This record gives sequence, structure tokens and C-alpha cells, in this order.
Amino acid sequence: MKETKVEDYRIEKDSLGTRDIPGDVYYGVQSLRAAENFHITGLRMHPEIINSLAYIKKAAAITNCEVGMLEKRKAQAIVQACDEILAGKFREDFIVDPIQGGAGTSLNMNANEVIANRAIELLGGNKGDYSIINPNDDVNCSQSTNDVIPTAGKMTSLRLLKNLKHELLQLHGALCKKAEEFNDVIKMGRTQLQDAVPIRLGQEFRAYSVAIMRDIHRMEKAMGEMRTLNLGGTAVGTGLNADEAYLHRIVPILSEVSDMDLAQAYDLIDATQNLDVFVAVSGAVKACAVTLSKIANDLRLMSSGPRAGLAEINLPAKQNGSSIMPGKINPVIPEVVNQVAFNIIGNDVTITMAAEAGQLELNAFEPIVFYCMFQSIDTLAYAVHTFVENCVTGITANETRCRYLVENSVGIITAICPYVGYQKAADIAKKAIKAGASVRDLILQENLLDKEQMDSLLDPFHMTEPGTIRGTMDVLNKTL
Amino acid sequence: MKETKVEDYRIEKDSLGTRDIPGDVYYGVQSLRAAENFHITGLRMHPEIINSLAYIKKAAAITNCEVGMLEKRKAQAIVQACDEILAGKFREDFIVDPIQGGAGTSLNMNANEVIANRAIELLGGNKGDYSIINPNDDVNCSQSTNDVIPTAGKMTSLRLLKNLKHELLQLHGALCKKAEEFNDVIKMGRTQLQDAVPIRLGQEFRAYSVAIMRDIHRMEKAMGEMRTLNLGGTAVGTGLNADEAYLHRIVPILSEVSDMDLAQAYDLIDATQNLDVFVAVSGAVKACAVTLSKIANDLRLMSSGPRAGLAEINLPAKQNGSSIMPGKINPVIPEVVNQVAFNIIGNDVTITMAAEAGQLELNAFEPIVFYCMFQSIDTLAYAVHTFVENCVTGITANETRCRYLVENSVGIITAICPYVGYQKAADIAKKAIKAGASVRDLILQENLLDKEQMDSLLDPFHMTEPGTIRGTMDVLNKTL
Amino acid sequence: MKETKVEDYRIEKDSLGTRDIPGDVYYGVQSLRAAENFHITGLRMHPEIINSLAYIKKAAAITNCEVGMLEKRKAQAIVQACDEILAGKFREDFIVDPIQGGAGTSLNMNANEVIANRAIELLGGNKGDYSIINPNDDVNCSQSTNDVIPTAGKMTSLRLLKNLKHELLQLHGALCKKAEEFNDVIKMGRTQLQDAVPIRLGQEFRAYSVAIMRDIHRMEKAMGEMRTLNLGGTAVGTGLNADEAYLHRIVPILSEVSDMDLAQAYDLIDATQNLDVFVAVSGAVKACAVTLSKIANDLRLMSSGPRAGLAEINLPAKQNGSSIMPGKINPVIPEVVNQVAFNIIGNDVTITMAAEAGQLELNAFEPIVFYCMFQSIDTLAYAVHTFVENCVTGITANETRCRYLVENSVGIITAICPYVGYQKAADIAKKAIKAGASVRDLILQENLLDKEQMDSLLDPFHMTEPGTIRGTMDVLNKTL
Amino acid sequence: MKETKVEDYRIEKDSLGTRDIPGDVYYGVQSLRAAENFHITGLRMHPEIINSLAYIKKAAAITNCEVGMLEKRKAQAIVQACDEILAGKFREDFIVDPIQGGAGTSLNMNANEVIANRAIELLGGNKGDYSIINPNDDVNCSQSTNDVIPTAGKMTSLRLLKNLKHELLQLHGALCKKAEEFNDVIKMGRTQLQDAVPIRLGQEFRAYSVAIMRDIHRMEKAMGEMRTLNLGGTAVGTGLNADEAYLHRIVPILSEVSDMDLAQAYDLIDATQNLDVFVAVSGAVKACAVTLSKIANDLRLMSSGPRAGLAEINLPAKQNGSSIMPGKINPVIPEVVNQVAFNIIGNDVTITMAAEAGQLELNAFEPIVFYCMFQSIDTLAYAVHTFVENCVTGITANETRCRYLVENSVGIITAICPYVGYQKAADIAKKAIKAGASVRDLILQENLLDKEQMDSLLDPFHMTEPGTIRGTMDVLNKTL
Repeated sequence: MKETKVEDYRIEKDSLGTRDIPGDVYYGVQSLRAAENFHITGLRMHPEIINSLAYIKKAAAITNCEVGMLEKRKAQAIVQACDEILAGKFREDFIVDPIQGGAGTSLNMNANEVIANRAIELLGGNKGDYSIINPNDDVNCSQSTNDVIPTAGKMTSLRLLKNLKHELLQLHGALCKKAEEFNDVIKMGRTQLQDAVPIRLGQEFRAYSVAIMRDIHRMEKAMGEMRTLNLGGTAVGTGLNADEAYLHRIVPILSEVSDMDLAQAYDLIDATQNLDVFVAVSGAVKACAVTLSKIANDLRLMSSGPRAGLAEINLPAKQNGSSIMPGKINPVIPEVVNQVAFNIIGNDVTITMAAEAGQLELNAFEPIVFYCMFQSIDTLAYAVHTFVENCVTGITANETRCRYLVENSVGIITAICPYVGYQKAADIAKKAIKAGASVRDLILQENLLDKEQMDSLLDPFHMTEPGTIRGTMDVLNKTL
Repeated sequence: MKETKVEDYRIEKDSLGTRDIPGDVYYGVQSLRAAENFHITGLRMHPEIINSLAYIKKAAAITNCEVGMLEKRKAQAIVQACDEILAGKFREDFIVDPIQGGAGTSLNMNANEVIANRAIELLGGNKGDYSIINPNDDVNCSQSTNDVIPTAGKMTSLRLLKNLKHELLQLHGALCKKAEEFNDVIKMGRTQLQDAVPIRLGQEFRAYSVAIMRDIHRMEKAMGEMRTLNLGGTAVGTGLNADEAYLHRIVPILSEVSDMDLAQAYDLIDATQNLDVFVAVSGAVKACAVTLSKIANDLRLMSSGPRAGLAEINLPAKQNGSSIMPGKINPVIPEVVNQVAFNIIGNDVTITMAAEAGQLELNAFEPIVFYCMFQSIDTLAYAVHTFVENCVTGITANETRCRYLVENSVGIITAICPYVGYQKAADIAKKAIKAGASVRDLILQENLLDKEQMDSLLDPFHMTEPGTIRGTMDVLNKTL
Repeated sequence: MKETKVEDYRIEKDSLGTRDIPGDVYYGVQSLRAAENFHITGLRMHPEIINSLAYIKKAAAITNCEVGMLEKRKAQAIVQACDEILAGKFREDFIVDPIQGGAGTSLNMNANEVIANRAIELLGGNKGDYSIINPNDDVNCSQSTNDVIPTAGKMTSLRLLKNLKHELLQLHGALCKKAEEFNDVIKMGRTQLQDAVPIRLGQEFRAYSVAIMRDIHRMEKAMGEMRTLNLGGTAVGTGLNADEAYLHRIVPILSEVSDMDLAQAYDLIDATQNLDVFVAVSGAVKACAVTLSKIANDLRLMSSGPRAGLAEINLPAKQNGSSIMPGKINPVIPEVVNQVAFNIIGNDVTITMAAEAGQLELNAFEPIVFYCMFQSIDTLAYAVHTFVENCVTGITANETRCRYLVENSVGIITAICPYVGYQKAADIAKKAIKAGASVRDLILQENLLDKEQMDSLLDPFHMTEPGTIRGTMDVLNKTL
Repeated sequence: MKETKVEDYRIEKDSLGTRDIPGDVYYGVQSLRAAENFHITGLRMHPEIINSLAYIKKAAAITNCEVGMLEKRKAQAIVQACDEILAGKFREDFIVDPIQGGAGTSLNMNANEVIANRAIELLGGNKGDYSIINPNDDVNCSQSTNDVIPTAGKMTSLRLLKNLKHELLQLHGALCKKAEEFNDVIKMGRTQLQDAVPIRLGQEFRAYSVAIMRDIHRMEKAMGEMRTLNLGGTAVGTGLNADEAYLHRIVPILSEVSDMDLAQAYDLIDATQNLDVFVAVSGAVKACAVTLSKIANDLRLMSSGPRAGLAEINLPAKQNGSSIMPGKINPVIPEVVNQVAFNIIGNDVTITMAAEAGQLELNAFEPIVFYCMFQSIDTLAYAVHTFVENCVTGITANETRCRYLVENSVGIITAICPYVGYQKAADIAKKAIKAGASVRDLILQENLLDKEQMDSLLDPFHMTEPGTIRGTMDVLNKTL
């Protein structure tokens, strides 16, 4: 038996009694109880929310000091502890599960305890001696879980959304480049998976890029919603126990400390109890996931084959496709985009339910909202990243195959409708399909147009751009 | 047997063959086939989408005439037929089910046929004589289901959203009024359903009103997203068979004809194939539903009782609450708000899945998107209407009960934390709960504060507004 | 002005005051108030839930009479009124909206009032004279909304599920028939949309039929869950105000009256407050919707074309596919199956949320659960019906095209893996794809197998059935 | 610089080229590429699916050896490698992300490579020398990702479900115990949060236990669905490259090796392409989550207070409730149950969408299905565990408070309805509420019953059990 047992553990006390805490850790009794109560995912908190808490606690210490609620000496120690966390230290001391009961009190107290114990050390004390720096009275001074945690969740979301926006801009760029590259590749347009009318592959990629830009704009609006914080409202938004001076200074100081553009909510009571902002932002992220999943589906369709599919484009081969079928290359990157999208859509339901379940002055279900929100934004950003790097930039077109499918199609008949009428055109189409014949041959056979007229009307490139139907009708001597 | 049997029916023909059509109806063979293929809900199309189609067909006829694609005589007849539909006629001739296969071709053709047959009549012809006015070549001239139907869906959503916004403004007004009325009602704030710190009932209603205003702003942004149309893009967004002049004029003319603020999409190919706009708007409607459901939950909680619940407020009695329990009054209006919210949240999932399932140049699942979108907006508007009329405006407060719960509470102890520290306050709280004692008595007993100090610190009204903690500390001679 | 004004209206009174009721209607004051409070969908109650209520009220009258709680004369009048409703009468007197607050009290009272007024008439009284038959004391005798409405919801679901099961059996039959018909059609199997190994079209349809049979079994289990009723539990499941004799007799009598196989719950309190059964059944219906949507997706893929798609099968043409593109036939029936599936998946979320929101002795959100549940089952049944009639039975195969794609494929290389190893086979595959060459030619060129061996190994039909790899290896003198 | 650099890395080659692999790792080039392609969650595979793969590869090696497809020497080495994995080794060599494109090929190849390299070592070779044991030809012999991965997913789910069932049984036991303990605690029943009629706290807990037992039965049925495997079907379910003998032996041998009750699917093609089983099982897990969330909501309501809430029960204090409000104890354990339930409901949507997105012979979205399914089952099991340990078993009742609320209530009036009629009872109720009077006093004042009759009828305990209404009516000389 070791002699040094006393030093291996320290004893901490809270309202529920005392507990042994390993001597070298920075968390305290409240973190320990929370970790024991919530063994749900087995995962750790997102590193970025730990950063957010460090920013908040730092800003609060500075503000409390300014307004005379906290001694300078204490404030300095707290600030330094926060800076060390921001530098990446003490991460292993954040021991609470991301899915936890209690509106984030466990996480807030975990931060308060780690910061207090480090600050105590910095002031020359022993960890656990909360007479030097108290987790509640000092680190949490003028604060409540109920304003700290929503603030941390929004700051974290903001930083993750910024990253997502960056990745989406890369994707937009990659799609624009492909749009130019494929501008002259004539291919069959399809509606409802049935041959429709010609389109250019470049137009398709241009359309993708425009849709992504719309999502980027939605992300910007979403970030706007996230900037409004309830910090200063304390327990229920009335600001109880926060000095008026603190209340007015805390958000500007937090903006400065974190170098983020943040604002205090107009009504702190509303901002404390409602999580609809997360629902709205999740809705925007979900809309983006839908756009991406649709693009991924299209790429999988267009690259289907190599012999028994559409085979219009080739996705870059990134790994063997099969453990049994040699030479098989699968569209694994678009597939992972789809899966991330499905997950985000499910997360949106979770976020919605959790937001709906708020009661009176607080929504106690922030932990699951944050867990899902951070996962949605992060996985989408990672999926977009691999989508750009390992798929979009390497796509090539099978130009000959594309043009063959157009020339061989029935759908080009649509272009002669204004001149011969829908019914006549439909008869030709039907005949062509039935006989496996060429639309061009049938048009000539039936003397609907002469060859020159037909070549002009059925020119596939012309069919992909608006033109002067009226003028052509005059040339053809067709009148209304 | 009637002699006139021949006149009772007319025979119509399409690519699939001929069908008898009742002589007096305005729909034709394509509508009939669609109605037979899709007996899904047994319901009719939303009246507003029929209006939207009438506006579109009218605008198209005017534009086609202007650019020389349609004879004036025909255009005039089509315009008059559309105006008659807008005046409420021929509604029973729209026979297709709102849930239909085919991206809305059935609905578009139903409109084309009804308008054609009415226009034929106006020109002195017999219904079914499509040589006079052709549903495809004339009524649908320069159009495709693929640009007409998304346009109709957006126009319809816009008008319904406008109505929803109106109802939300009423609710905002009613909540603001209650916020003033209840401004002095001190009550216990609760977080996680546990007694927290005092708040004023008026503050709670103010917070509700602020949340609703945020939703109103989201509705405005949502309406912004809906204004961008792909009309002119025809089949796949390339504008095939639409004259360039038509393409540039159609949306301005539609704006004028419908008196709505509409714009043509920058990229018509993107706007034809993507329904992410509906996902985004449904997300905003859903966020609003979440806010409303949370408010409804709160009202049900606060009005629980009358004897064994919180009983802080009374909802107006609108109907007997029970078939077995006499005198029971239930919160039926908030309950219907909850249910509408749940339905909207489910509809959002449906809309999301349908939007994700688009393929290549088109999303064929617009019918279910529209069905759910219109239902979400409509039922939310109706729910908000009854919420205002039959609930919010008639709410009264049980002021005495509210104050009793505050005075009797333990949570007010929080206010002395800055002066005595969290741990000391916690000891008092624990003792009070255990002994069923009064916090005030214990504070005096333990000589923590004198009576005057205590009365000042524990004044509930003061606890609901930010104050000068620092100043009070000085007065109490408490230092850091 | 008419003299008879007094007879046009009767005055009814409830706890909230008096209201004029049109003289000729059978509903009363409580129905009227409910209809005014809840103008949400504008729709009427599902006819089958009205039937369910008539069965319940009839069974209750019989049982109450048996146990001495209701005079025979009154009971007989009530029974006859119920029988008339079951025969289709008084449907227009059920005026309450399907989405209503209050756990169905409005609907229950609507039934009580209609039945009471009709029974009063039958006993020679005037509508509204509730001294003859009282809606609460007589029609609702020994009952509460809280046992009547869940019971009605389950009985209705049961009958709708029975119909759905019937339609699914038709689909199973149609798929089996196609499985036989297409048993010899060799085609390319595809995984991840990439060419894999041969399969027979009949095998694919067989797989569909097996999946549908699994769903049919799930429907049966779901129906089992629905048979357990809380009738007799009255307000909270304790059976208050229901005589013990009634409590034991009511469900057997209801079974007899309705000719349905029903049972009373073991724990009436549980059965009154929990709607998890509806969540479970909705989950089963949703699983079925998923299977169907996947089949619909496959059919749309396989029938894509006619020229620029897979074109392996043809779906029967049921209507013109396009208003602009002549000759286009779209897969409208599978598309409506998809849309119904999407809607069911959304409804499942709504049902889940509503079930979760139950509180203490009751779940007040049954109306929305029923609304969504009935819609899910009904629309799925209708979708399956049109799927069988208008799609599956008419599918034809493009046998030549199917075989061509197999012969031309690279994927058949897989069959030689056991004999030459994955790596060697992969090299051939790569070479074939790169050079656009035939796998067969390359195998011969490289002397991997002689022609006879190759023909045997690459026989596509053999590749679709398990065989004796080991034996073949011996023949080829390949050893481990 | 180290001399031995050559030994630090080995070079591996696949169809895409060569890559350096760290010399000491057991994964190979395909795992490496997959890990690089999919950096999505940053998490590792669930340990139980690694176990499942080890069982499968072991069973396949044994079976392949038996049927002559694999040399005994190789088979033995593979079996030992699998046993070592099952003993917990090489976990860090499973490097692929749980969310990955490609239907699990990456995971399957990761297993194949780790097992191959370890088996090579066991046979005295150097890692990477696949001429000794080949990942594809030997470890994956007679298998495909497409039968291995679904099988692994089902086996894993089965083991996790077994654990969940165990936890649910504990919960059932705990609830039954509380049902007995609280059997005599009379309290107010509430419907729609309004006072209804008396109930016993023990009855409420009994109802919870019955609901949980229903969920346990659903888990058993769910496990039944999971036992049916497509192993032996290889790439598309036709069993290509699996010897007939292998096909018949593999599942029985897997059952034996894993000590699990498993069966081979009747139709392997269906079982390869459809994931509806996961939808059905997720639906059952979700129904259980709904039950639990409802119970958690009830406990939070009943324990609301301590002074300004219902305060009928006390949940055990498990941690400080607030960082600002001293003495506050929050219902953190029920709250985490709610959050886990919300997450499961969202996961169900994800699983549903992924299952719906399967195409033709395969569903490529198994990875996300498994990720969500495992998370749902695991987190539910953990949540139930903490629910039992840290909440349910420690609940106590405030018996006096409960009885006070009953005696003071208006709802008890319901019991006199059969004797005085609904209308008369309603008048009393109304008067009582308005005047704040006692129902008992009013009944006596109005001479409706004498004191003895009243005491008998309004005895709260009697009101919680079915009784002889008819007999009592006779005693009271009340006739119909």
C-alpha cells in the first residue's frame, strides 16, 4: 500500500456530500457527479464549445473586475486559466457527456471547476481550495448556466458555420470550373428519368453552382440569427444578480475577447427560453443538405455504368469498389454526401422536438440540440470537403456518348412543336418509338420539313438556348 | 332511355385512344385519365392554386399575343376564361387529386383543358373542338408543366404566407396587450419545472410577443425566397419553344396581372430542378410552429388546475371539457395549436424528402410538396386565428395565487448570493426545504441580514429587473 | 318575414350559456361550439370513425340496459339511432373538424348529441328536449371521451388496415405473376448503380414480392396491437362511474355488435394514457411505405429512356406525360407511390410527437394522431391499388436490350475470380474498360481459360443461381 | 536519421496504384484510402460490429475449409486472427470512419486486411505479403461486402438489443416495486393537465410498468426480425462464387461460432437489397423511446416545485441543479431520458430515408443506418440504466400533499353523476370553483345527499376502483 495516498486524492464537498477526487485533475465534485450520472454517448464535448466557454468565462472575469464585482487578482488568474484552455490545455478535464440532463449545468460547472482549480494553482493554492477562487461565486460570477450555455452554443455554431461556408465556397468554385469545362458537351436532358430535350452538361453544373450559392446566402442569414446572445440575463433573463453595468458591458467585451461579431438580445427573457433560432438555422443547414444530396444523386445517375448505365460522366476512382467484383469502381464520395444529408435531416427532427419541449423560463434540452447541431454542421463541412477534393474536381465527361444519346433520341421532336403542332409531333414520336426509327428520318419521310429546315430546328446546341421562335415561324411561312 | 344520349357525351382523343366525356363538363380526356389514375386523397386542389394557374395562363396568353405567338382573338378568349375562373367559376371541373404522379402535368392539363373548352365556347364553338383553341398549342403555348407548376406553387404559397403573416401580427398585438395588462403580476419563474426566481407575468407575455415577431420576420424572408420564378424556362429551364421576347416579358406581365411582386430566376435550369426553396420556407414555418407550440404548452401549464395545478392564469372557457366530468374546462385551444404544430413538423419531413428526391432536370414530386406546404401554412393561420380569438385575448391572471407562490418560495434566496455567497445561501435553501420553513425566517434567525436589508433584497419586483448589485454590496459593507 | 321563425331554431343550453341551433339539425350546442372553435382543416371526420362511434354507443346502450343502468325504452331508441348512422344517415350532422383540441371530446359529444336527438325523435319528442334522452347521462352513460375516443380510433385503424392488407395481397399476387413471367429474362444486376453481375428480371420481381409479404405480416402484427381497447376505463382508466358488470361486458358486446375481434386491455390506466400502439403501427405502415417507394424507384430507373436510359422494362402508358414534349410517357404511377410514401414518413413523425406529448392520465392529442394515421393507411391502400391496376400488371420486359447489356458488360468477369484470383480478374476488367474491349476476348487473348471453359463459366443464367464452384475448380485443375 | 527507414514502411498496391503503409500496422492500402476519403465523424467503428465481422470471417474460413475452398493451414491462421480480434486486439487498426460511402466495402476490406496481415504473421510471413493470405481471395472467400456487412449490422443490433432488453427488464422491475410501494397513495388524476378524478400513485407506476413490458415484447419481436441473414448471397443475392455447400453451411456455422440464434433468409436477393427490417426495428425502438419520454415528462411534472409546483413526488437529488440558484435540484435524469428519446426519433427519420434510398440490387447506405441504429439502441440502454439507478428507485411520495389536493378538488364531483345527473353535478362544480368553496359543503347545503351517502360516494379510494354503481343507485333509491 502506498504511503502517499493522501496526496493522490483530494476531498471535495457539495450539497449532496463529499467525494474523493483524483489529486491531479482540474475538474471537481460537480463534474464528477455529472459524469457518473450521464454515461450516454461515451464521447467528449466538442472542442469548440470548450473554447466558447473559455471566451465567456474570460469576458465575464474582465467585466466583473471592471464593474467591481471581482478582485483584479482573481480576475487575472481566471483570465489566464481561460487562455490556457484556449491554447488547448486541460481538454481531458472536460469529462461530462455531450448528452446530459440539466440544460448544460454539468458542462458549465465542469468549466467553472477546471478554471477555478487552474486559477487557484496560479495564485499558489492547492486544487480544491475554493476559498481562493470559487467556481460559483467567482468563475460563474454574474452568470447562470441559463445564459452561459445558450451563448456558448451560439458562438460554437457560428464558428462551425463559418467553416461550412468556406467549404461551400470551394464547392461553388469547383462547380463553376466544371460548368465552363463542360460548356460545349451536349447531352440529353431528362425529366422524371425519361428522355426530355437536349441540355449542356455545363448548364447542369452551372445550375448546381447557383443552387450552392443560394445555400451560402442562407448560411450567412443563419449566422446572422446566431449572433444574438442572452448573456447577462442570468437565470431567467431578468438579469438577477448581474449588476446593471455588467449587463451592458459583457457582450461587447465578449465580442472583443473572441474576435466575433456578437450582439445582446433585445429581450433577454425571450432569448433565454426559446431555441427557435436553432430550429431556423438547422432548417437552413438541412436545405443545403438537400441540395447537396440531389447533386450527389445526379452524379451517381450520370456516372452509372460503365456499360449498362447512363455513362455520361466519370467520377474519379478513389478506392476499389468491391471486395468480390474486380474492377468495380463505386461512387463512394457522392454516397457519403447522401448519408451525411440523411443524418442532418434526422438531426433536424431532433432539434425541432427538443426546441418544442422548452417549458416556461428555460429550454432544458440544449445539450441534445447542440450535439445534433454541431454534428450536422461539422459532418456537412467534412462531406463537402471530400466532395470537392475527391470527386467534383476530377469529374470527366464522355462527350461522344452524350452526343450519341441526343442524336439517337426522340425528345428532340419537341423543337418542331411550334411549327407543326403538338399532335402531329406526338404522332411522329410515337411512330419513332414503336419502330425504333429515327425522328429525323420520319420528319423527312412525312415531308414535314425539308432537310435544311430540320437541321436548323433540330440543332441540339440551339435547343439549349432561348431563340427567336417567332422569326423562325415566319421563315417557315407558318402563321398562327 | 333518353333520346338525347348522343349529346350527353362528347368523344375526346389523346395519344392513348378515345374516351367519352360528359357533354357539360369543361375538363377533357387528359384530366379524366389523371382523375382515374390518382384516387389518393379524394380531395380537390387548393382553390388558390387554381387561381394561380388562371393568372399564369392569362399572363401567358397576353404575352404570347404581344410577341406574335398567339392570335389576338384566341388570346382574348383565353383571358376571359381565366377571368371567369378567378371569379370562382368552373371549380368543379378541376377534378385531379392533389397527390398525383407526374410533376403536376395532370393539374396543368386540367387547367389547359378547362380554359380551352371555355374559350372555345366563348368563340362560339363546341366543347371538345380543339381546332378552335388547343389546350397544348394555345393555352399552354410557350409553357411546360415544368415551369408552370413550380410557378403556381410559389404564387400560392406567397398568398397563403401573406395571410399567415396577418394572423401572426394579430397574435403579436394580442400578446403585447396582455404583456401590458399583466405587467405588475409578480409570479414564480420556473426553469426545468423547478421553482427558480421571480418574474412578472407581463414579462413572460412580452417574451412571447418578441418570439412571434421574430417569426414574422422569418415569414417575410420566406416570402422573399418564394418570389423567384422559373416561368419561361419551359421543359428543362433552357426555354426551348419559348420565344426570347416571351421569355423576357412573361414574368413582368404575370406580376401585373396578379398584382404580386414576382421576379424571374437568374438561372432557369436551377430554378426548374430544385425545390430547396420550399424546404427553406417550410423550415421557417416550422420554426414558427415550434414557437407557438411552446407558448401553448406554457399556457396549458400555467392554467393547470383549477385546484391541483399551478393555477396562475385562467384560459377562457370555450366548450365543456368533458363528457363525464362535470365542470371540467380544458385548454382546448392551446391543444389544437400543439396538434397543428406537430402536423407541420411532420409535413416538413415530407417536403424535405420530396425535395431531396428530385432527379436531373426536374423534381417530379412537387404535388406532395405543395399539398403539405399549403396545409402547413393554412392550418397554422387558422390555428393562430382561433388562438387569438378564443384564447389569448381572454386570458386572466390569478394575481393573488401568483404572489402567494413567490412569497412562499425558496428560490428567492438566489438574490442574496452576491452578498453571502452561493454555499451559505445553499445551506439556507436546503434547511428551508427540509423543514418546510420560510427562507425569510431562516435568514433572520441566522443573522445573515437585518430585516430592512432582507426586505430590500428580497423584494420580488426588484428581483425581476436588473439592478445595482455593486452599489448594494457597498451599502451592506460587503467587499470582494 | 316568416311567421314560423320559432320553429326554425331551437335554443340549447350548456354550462357556457345558450345558443340558437337550426331546428332541423341533429347536432347540439356542444358540437356547434366545437365547430366554431376549430376551423382548422375545413374537412369532415373520416366516415369510418363515425361508424366506430355508432358501434360503441350501440354496444354501450345494450350493455347499460343489461346491467340496469339504462331503461330499455331509451336503450332501444339509442340502438336504432346508431343503426341509422351505420346505414349512412346523419353524416352531415358530424360537423367538427378532424383536428380539434380536447382529446376528442368534441367528436364524442357530436356523436352523443346526434344520437340523442335522433333517439328523442324516435321516442316522439322534439330535438333538443334532453329530458327524454340526455347526451351525457344516457348516450354517454358509463363512458368518457377518454375511453370512447381511443377505442374508436383503434377500431377505425383496424378496418382500414384490413383494407390495406387486402390491397397488399393483390400487389403480392401481381408481383409473383411478373416474377414467373420474367423468370428467363437475364439482365445486368447493379449495385450502387454500377454494373455488377447478372441477375434475372424474374428474380428481382420475386424479391419485391417477398418484401411485400414481410410487410403483410407486419400489418397483421400491427392489427394485433390495435385490438386491445381501454373501453370501460372511463375518465382515467379506473372505471369510475362504470358499473363493474358493465366493465366486464362492454368489450365482448362491442365485439359482437361490430363483428370485430376485440379485447379489453389488461391495465386500463396504461391503455388510457399511452398512444405508443399508434407509434408502433405507424412504424409498420412506414416500413411498408419504404419498401414500396424503393420498388417504385427501381421501376422508374429500369424503365428510364426510352432511348437515353436503362430501358430494360416498359411501364404501361396511362396518360400523356408532358404538356410540351410530344410522345413523352412518364412513370406517373410509381411517382405517386413515392409521394404517398414521403407523406406517410412525415405523418409518422407527427404521430410520434403527438404520442410523446401525452401527460399523466391522458394523451390529449389523439385527434392529430388519428388524422395522420387514417390518412397514412388510406392513401397507402389507394396508392397500392393504382400501382397494381395501372402499373405492375402491365409491365413488359425489353428482353433483347437486357441481354445485350449483360453480354456487353465487364461485371461478368466476377465469375472467374475463384479460378484466376481477384487481382488477375481486376487487371482484365481494367483493361476491358480502358480499351472498350470485350471481357471474353481478353480472357482468350490472355489464355486464362479456353473457349469451352469460358463459355461455361460466363454463362449468364448459371451466374444467377448457386453452383458447385468447388467441382468446377477440380475440372479446371485449379487447386487451392 | 534512422537507418532502418525501409522497415518503417511497406509498400502496398491496389488497382489505383501503390501506397506506403506504416510497417507495424495491420490494415492495408484499401483501408488507408478509405480512411482518407471519409473523414466525416472522426469516430471509430462500434466495437461490436468489429466483433461481428470477426465472427463472420471466422465462420467463413471454417466453412470454406470444410467445402474445400480454402486450405486448412490458411483457414486456421484466419480463425486465430479472428479470435485475437474477438479478444480485443487490433482495435486501433480499424481506421475507417463509421459514416463512409460504399455500402461498407471500406469496413469489410479493413477487416479483410487486418485479418490477412495477422494471419500472414501467424504463418511466418511479413505483413503485406498477400501471396501467403490474400484479403480478397482468402479472407473474403465466398463472400461479398453485400452479404457480409448487412449480416454484421444485424448481428451487432441483436447483441445491442439484448442489452437494451436487459435494461428495460430492470426498469420494469423498479417500476413494479414503486407500484407496490405507492399503492395506497391517493392523488388527483389529471387529464389535459386539468384536475380530473382520483387515482392512486401506485396505479400510475403500475401503468408505466405495463407500458414498458409492451416495449419489451416489441424488442423481442424486433430481435426476431434481425435474425434473418443474407450471408451466402454474395454480391447481389444470387450466391455467385459461393459454392452451394458453403451457401448451406455458412449460417449454421456462424450461429455456432457466435453462439447466436441466426437463420438464412428465404430469398437472398430480397435480403440483400432491402433494409426495411432496420426501419421496422428502429420503429420499435422509437416506440419505446416515446413511452420512456412520456414517463420522464410525467415524473418531471409530478416532482415540479418544491413549493410552486405539483410537488407530489420527489426525485432523488443527483447533482446541484444550478450554478446560480442555491439549493435548486433539477430532474436531470428524466431530462436526459427525454433528450435520448428526441435523438432516437431523429435517427429513425435518418434510417427511414437511408432505407428508402436503396437502388436495385443493393442499398449502399447501410453505414448511416448502422451508425444511427447502434447509437439509438446504445444510448437508450444507457439512459434506461441511469434512469433506474439514479432516478426511479429513489423516488418518494409526498403522501400528505397528494391527499390534500384530492380532498380540496372539484373533480371528485364526478362520482355523484350517476345519482344526480351530469347537469346538476356541473352546477355544483361551477359554483364551487367560482366561490372557492368545498364540493362536499355544497352537496350538503343543497341536500343532494346526506353526509353518510356522500362520504361513501366520495371516498377517494373507492373512486379508484370499479364498483357497483347499480347497487348504490338502489340503495339511494335512485331509479332510471
